[in-house]
Amino acid sequence: MLTIIKIGGNVIDNSAKLHQFLLDFTALPGNKILVHGGGKIATELGESLGIEAKMVEGRRVTDIETLRIVTMVYAGLINKNMVAQLQAKGCNAIGLTGADGNLIQAKKRPVKTVDYGFVGDLDETSINTATLTSLMQSGLIPVLCAITHDGDTQLLNTNADTIASAVAVAMSQHEETNLVYCFEKKGVLKDVANEDSVVREIRAGQFEALQADGTVAGGMIPKLHNAFEAIKKGVSAVYIGQADELPMLGSAAFGTKLLA
Amino acid sequence: MLTIIKIGGNVIDNSAKLHQFLLDFTALPGNKILVHGGGKIATELGESLGIEAKMVEGRRVTDIETLRIVTMVYAGLINKNMVAQLQAKGCNAIGLTGADGNLIQAKKRPVKTVDYGFVGDLDETSINTATLTSLMQSGLIPVLCAITHDGDTQLLNTNADTIASAVAVAMSQHEETNLVYCFEKKGVLKDVANEDSVVREIRAGQFEALQADGTVAGGMIPKLHNAFEAIKKGVSAVYIGQADELPMLGSAAFGTKLLA
Repeated sequence: MLTIIKIGGNVIDNSAKLHQFLLDFTALPGNKILVHGGGKIATELGESLGIEAKMVEGRRVTDIETLRIVTMVYAGLINKNMVAQLQAKGCNAIGLTGADGNLIQAKKRPVKTVDYGFVGDLDETSINTATLTSLMQSGLIPVLCAITHDGDTQLLNTNADTIASAVAVAMSQHEETNLVYCFEKKGVLKDVANEDSVVREIRAGQFEALQADGTVAGGMIPKLHNAFEAIKKGVSAVYIGQADELPMLGSAAFGTKLLA
Repeated sequence: MLTIIKIGGNVIDNSAKLHQFLLDFTALPGNKILVHGGGKIATELGESLGIEAKMVEGRRVTDIETLRIVTMVYAGLINKNMVAQLQAKGCNAIGLTGADGNLIQAKKRPVKTVDYGFVGDLDETSINTATLTSLMQSGLIPVLCAITHDGDTQLLNTNADTIASAVAVAMSQHEETNLVYCFEKKGVLKDVANEDSVVREIRAGQFEALQADGTVAGGMIPKLHNAFEAIKKGVSAVYIGQADELPMLGSAAFGTKLLA
């Protein structure tokens, strides 16, 4: 049983939350992989260096300067501090990018209407499950940041949600795999204003009806769409919930569970 | 047979030199580990951020801001770009700090007359040879940067020469190990002004005489002293030579070979 957990800025940027999350992650039984994105630090470093975030049609563009910054912050500062904290908690973490051990080979996103710059997209062949498995068999816990490579010297910025999902799908061909997205809210809420209205379980067949009645709206639609795609491709279950509640993972009380 | 190679700023800061070195490193037979220091990039990033290098009694001090910078530059920017380049050349590199897999556990240097800040010193128990060996048995080539940890959440800045030597000594207990320091000059020179006057071999017993006659002077004295210490503790040979000449390693034509 393998659990893949993705955390983002709302955990990374809050040191008390991050400390508690890393304790809970350490306590999680079975094989596990942590995937993390960036956070405010990359934006702040960019600002300190006078490099503005470039946006085209509302999407962030990774120019060469931004790639340098995310490589420093994601693969250096955030990843290594997280690994040092996990080690102190007794979790034998190893921090990695997709270049390390050729774990994740991406393709630079082709330029169509927008040039996203040094952004890497993943496909079915991107994930090196053999090396990931061999690291875990040596007792190491992979901590993956959102940097990949193209196999031809170029590092690439890749969305951490996408990495988590691609790793989960690829690993699910070898081992029962669950995927957990840590999220700002407690899960999919029936009433957005009420944190206690978590929908505990959604089956793939219910997804359309929940969009029609407005329970799933806005940014949650692509999130759930991608989750159900991962399930279709082999992931046993996808959870969307709050990092604070991780100790309840596996009970019915953690977030929203998405199933086939 | 294991070869540990250390490179510094004179290779890292020159992209043509680095490219050629990484090709030659890839071609090197047997088990190998690359250890790298920083270079101008960390100093430049510090300057861009308005953080001045702090010196006390002529020694660089690693305050918390400097530690952030070296973590970003060594473990992020330099290490990951080097790994991506090695991967493109067919070398299955994996970039690591001492925190990753608890590979190198250091002790923060005690404050005596000078507080060096977040600098880590190594001892006989610092190197996790079991995990290094298991990574190499999985076909991975470790690329270590000059960042370690104390096992209690703190990352530490550790001299790359010291890391290379400590790793070589520890690994030599398990496997025949050579250590190579890439250097600005072609080796120990009989006449400093003449690059063709390389002393090809120095035995531990000759070291004092070479200091007395001035062949080994200045900064070379502690370098050779440390090399002979490593040899005393089990390393088969230590080479001091130029990165460009790496293909000649093993022949009598590479640098200066130090032996028991």
